[in-house]
Parts: sequence; structure tokens; C-alpha cells
Amino acid sequence: MKKCGRDVLKSNWKDLEVEIPDRKKGILIPPYIKPFDENGEFIDLTPIEKINLGNVDLNSVLENRKSRRNFADTPLTLEELSYLLYYTQGVKNVIKDKVTFRTVPSAGATHPLETYLLIFNVDGVDEGLYRYIPTIHKLLLIKNGNFSEEIIRATLGQTFIGKSAVVFVWTAIPYRTEWKYSFEAHKTIAIDAGHVCQNLYLTVESINCGTCAVAAYDQELMDKLIEVDGNNEFVVYLAPVGKI
Amino acid sequence: MKKCGRDVLKSNWKDLEVEIPDRKKGILIPPYIKPFDENGEFIDLTPIEKINLGNVDLNSVLENRKSRRNFADTPLTLEELSYLLYYTQGVKNVIKDKVTFRTVPSAGATHPLETYLLIFNVDGVDEGLYRYIPTIHKLLLIKNGNFSEEIIRATLGQTFIGKSAVVFVWTAIPYRTEWKYSFEAHKTIAIDAGHVCQNLYLTVESINCGTCAVAAYDQELMDKLIEVDGNNEFVVYLAPVGKI
Repeated sequence: MKKCGRDVLKSNWKDLEVEIPDRKKGILIPPYIKPFDENGEFIDLTPIEKINLGNVDLNSVLENRKSRRNFADTPLTLEELSYLLYYTQGVKNVIKDKVTFRTVPSAGATHPLETYLLIFNVDGVDEGLYRYIPTIHKLLLIKNGNFSEEIIRATLGQTFIGKSAVVFVWTAIPYRTEWKYSFEAHKTIAIDAGHVCQNLYLTVESINCGTCAVAAYDQELMDKLIEVDGNNEFVVYLAPVGKI
Repeated sequence: MKKCGRDVLKSNWKDLEVEIPDRKKGILIPPYIKPFDENGEFIDLTPIEKINLGNVDLNSVLENRKSRRNFADTPLTLEELSYLLYYTQGVKNVIKDKVTFRTVPSAGATHPLETYLLIFNVDGVDEGLYRYIPTIHKLLLIKNGNFSEEIIRATLGQTFIGKSAVVFVWTAIPYRTEWKYSFEAHKTIAIDAGHVCQNLYLTVESINCGTCAVAAYDQELMDKLIEVDGNNEFVVYLAPVGKI
């Protein structure tokens, strides 16, 4: 087991003066989102200013949130999915074509995460694997198909995940944060996944959906399913969502 | 540098069948909160059902949240502080005196975090270091005094932190999660800190306060300031809060 134990949770920030991050070596900042084929097949999402799902108050959502593993067969609408995507990873500003400001915080605004969706039951959207492109607020099709058996196997037999309407799968592209914070990046990348997922917990609760985030999965199977290389980009956290 | 790099972010959950966690060895579950002196000096917090700070809608809070580093001199009220504490770590249920359900999610409901406050400017509360005891929703005094210079030094010179009204400092007691998940615990502890902090970002926004979470600090100085041992319990994340 190559695990470093508790040390990863501790701050060795001072040592960044000795082990200098790439940023301070004059190495160019990496892209703020993973490049994508502009000629791919896209699905337009509802712009945030046109989303009208009612106005739930913050406190009731905070109070009622809990982990939910029983999902109804009711589909999500594309408007609902647009809402969840925007408030988990939506881009509000791109600064000098280098840095994004998003609806969630991230260490040094490095935003190391990408969002993939396994869609099973969303109105008007074919089942399949998609990627959220936050800068244009669209879904990019990666492959069509029903991957419920694959996701259950990749999550070590957690069948409730295969019965959701859509699974949010977050990958990290760690170099985005390593470039700025070197060895300190890995703790903050995990924290960032928590920031994002908490917004998902609250927004799903506000539209009569539920989620239960999942950290237990088979790394190789998950990375293969999502079609990422497992080194420069790999799955870090996931959350199945469904109507309750 | 004892850092394990990207590996900590990957799932080796399958290996828990080989490197069996203490839970499966029949070892008793550790306490769900750190023991405290019941004869200590406590400050009563406002119970959540009596908190009346208005009703802000979720979407405006999600939309307006940003990292804020400029704080006004206005104090927070004890009611506001009670609200922030409850929705970041409040305990809703204790199950069989072993497990807590809280206002935030945690991997396996292990809830490895404790909350300490450095109070500078809260109405009716003396400056000092306190600990939040979530099971009784009270503050326990650890020591009185103004620790703004100490916190600035411990955060490597981030002066804005010393100008806040109160600094939330989260420690981890990692064994709570290690007991259940062994080497997989450290990633999920960091994720849990993110869940908690995102609720802080949203709740402060709803009461005209702001925060900017901080991962850059001197581990030894922070642990010493908060009076934790740095091994079984140590600081993992912090967030200064103030009126804006």
C-alpha cells in the first residue's frame, strides 16, 4: 500500500520555499479546463438566468439535507440538471484566459476538477457518458449506452448507484494545482471535491432529489469507464443523484 | 518532504480486505467527540429553533458567494455565531452513543473534525480560544486573550485573518475515520473538511459576513496555538469570518 497516512493532511507550506512549485520557475500555467473537440456532439443546458425551479430557503435545505440512497424512477429535467451543474462547477468569469472563478471556492482558484455524468434518466437526453464543459455550459457526449452494470462493478457492488437518474463523477487534473502548490496540492484537491459535493447535496435537496456521495470505488475500473488516463487525470469522488 | 503525491487521491478501497481496519478486528469504536471537562467554563449558544436571522434563498447565496478578505469592524452576534456553528458541525442525532448524524455529511458518518474558534469580536463574548461542543451546542473556554498576532504568524503572515471577528479552526482526530477505513481515511477527512467549509461559505454569505478559507499555515505553530498534540489531533483547515 503506497499511502502516506496522516502527513498528507498536515501543512508543510513553508517547504514550498525550498521545493519551488513550477509557477515560480516560470513554467506556463496549464489550461484551466481540459481541451475538448469543438466539433463534438453537444447538448445545450439551460442558462442560469433562465432557470426557474422555485426559491427554496437556505436554512430548510441545510436542515433537511441527508444522505439518500433510495431513488424514484422519475426522470430529472434538463433544467434541473443544468442547475446542479452550474452550482457545482459553473464558471462565472475567466480571467486573462488563465484562471476561472466559479460558483465554488478552490485553493488558489486552481479548480483542478472536471465533471463527468453517467446519465440514466434525464428527460430528452440519451443514456450515456457525458462531460460538462463549464466555460460554455454545455454537455459533451463521450459515448452513448447504459453503463449501470459497469458503474455498479466499478463501485464495488453498490447497486443503488445504478438506480440513480444521473451519476456525477469528478476527476482531478492534479497538475493544475500542483503547478501552483506542488506537494501541498493533494490535500487541497480533496478539500475542493468536498466544497463541490456539498453544493450538490444542497442543490439536489432543493429540487426534491437526493444524493449520497461515494469514495469507495475501484480506481482502475472507474478511470476506464470515464475514459481518463488514470495518471494525469483520474476519478476522485462521485455522487449518484435521483428523485426521491 | 514526506508527501505521497497523487496516490492519496486515488481509491485503493479493495485493499481494505487485506489491510483490515480496526473496526473489523473487534476493536471498540473511538469516542464520537473529543472528551471535555464538564466542569469547564461554558457559553450557551442560541438553539437552532430559536435562531431568527431571516430567510435568505439558497440560489442567491450560491450565486453571491465569493472569497472575502476585507472585514468590517462590526461584531458578530452570538446568535449569528450559533447559526454558523450549528450548520457546519451541529449534531442532530447520536445513535447508540456511538455515531453522530450532523448537519454535514461525512464518510461513514465518522465525523473526524473538531471546531475551535479564535474569537476577536463577538458581542458579549470575551476574546479567546474556545472549542465548540456540538453535542450540547455550547462553547467551552480554553483560554482568554487576543491571539491575532499568533494567528497571523501561524498562517505565515496573512494579516487579514487577524482582522476577522472569529476564526474557525478545524482539527482532525484521524483515528475516528481510520478505525473504519484505515489508509483510505485521509482522503475522506480532507473531503469532509471541504463539506463543512462550504456550508460555512454559504451561511456567512446569508448573514452579511464573508470568509476566505486557508490551507497555508505552519502546522507546529497552529497546533500549539490551538493546544492540540499535533499527532492524534491536528489542524487541517481554517476560515476567518467577519462582517462585510
